[in-house]
Amino acid sequence: MNVAFINPFIVSMKQVMAMMASIDLDVLQPALKKDAVSRGEVSGIIGMVGPQVRGSMAISLEKDLSFAMMKNMLAEDVQELNDSVCDMVGEITNMICGSAKGHLSEQGYEFEMATPVIVSGVEHLIQHKVEGPKIILPFSSSQGNAYLEICFDG
Amino acid sequence: MNVAFINPFIVSMKQVMAMMASIDLDVLQPALKKDAVSRGEVSGIIGMVGPQVRGSMAISLEKDLSFAMMKNMLAEDVQELNDSVCDMVGEITNMICGSAKGHLSEQGYEFEMATPVIVSGVEHLIQHKVEGPKIILPFSSSQGNAYLEICFDG
Repeated sequence: MNVAFINPFIVSMKQVMAMMASIDLDVLQPALKKDAVSRGEVSGIIGMVGPQVRGSMAISLEKDLSFAMMKNMLAEDVQELNDSVCDMVGEITNMICGSAKGHLSEQGYEFEMATPVIVSGVEHLIQHKVEGPKIILPFSSSQGNAYLEICFDG
Repeated sequence: MNVAFINPFIVSMKQVMAMMASIDLDVLQPALKKDAVSRGEVSGIIGMVGPQVRGSMAISLEKDLSFAMMKNMLAEDVQELNDSVCDMVGEITNMICGSAKGHLSEQGYEFEMATPVIVSGVEHLIQHKVEGPKIILPFSSSQGNAYLEICFDG
């Protein structure tokens, strides 16, 4: 995987979460992800396809963080992973991937985004089926942790 | 959603399962999917992007059916949803979507496929975030049931 792909996703995750949800994320150490266990209870997944790029991105959020986002973005006080939370996670996934797409386009890498799919459940497993390595980027905040997984073929 | 999109997926699901896994599927009644609960314990999801097409496809398999496929395709006797099962589900997802892509291309609808993502866990929830309806196509077999979900924007 081209390391130039990583930073636009980190920047976009931080920017979108700050701007849309007033959540200030600290970036922790990126790592290779060897297992398939999702780190959060709700995840948004989006496919990416382009001439030089084919892969998938997932954001995985701890439950409490997703509830804090519901409060900050929609003034809704939720206590369970309902349809509204899933919708919000889908929107945020779209925005983060869309922002990274913009940054990468400036560097000459073009891709189109599929529609997001939201998965929830305790310890659900998410396995990206790609040829290349799977990178996990952890983020912490006072409202809970978030994880960004990016994987590309080749 | 264009109803012309549905049949190529049904045909491809039946063909790939028969040819690759020697599983004979009966096609049950298609329905609109209103909830997000996955019907099987392991699901393969793939994004699709093209000029006239943007959406996602998921196949969801009952555990026992995925074990029967492991036996038929790889002569492996597995009793749990391990990495090999997830890999196999990823391959089958690719093949079914690839086959449907071929059929749809003949009708003038072109799209590219993202990389598949495999999700497992009991009663994991899968929510496709699209503008259009979500169609679920159930299939039965003597080894267990399979479900195909297809969703497109617009």
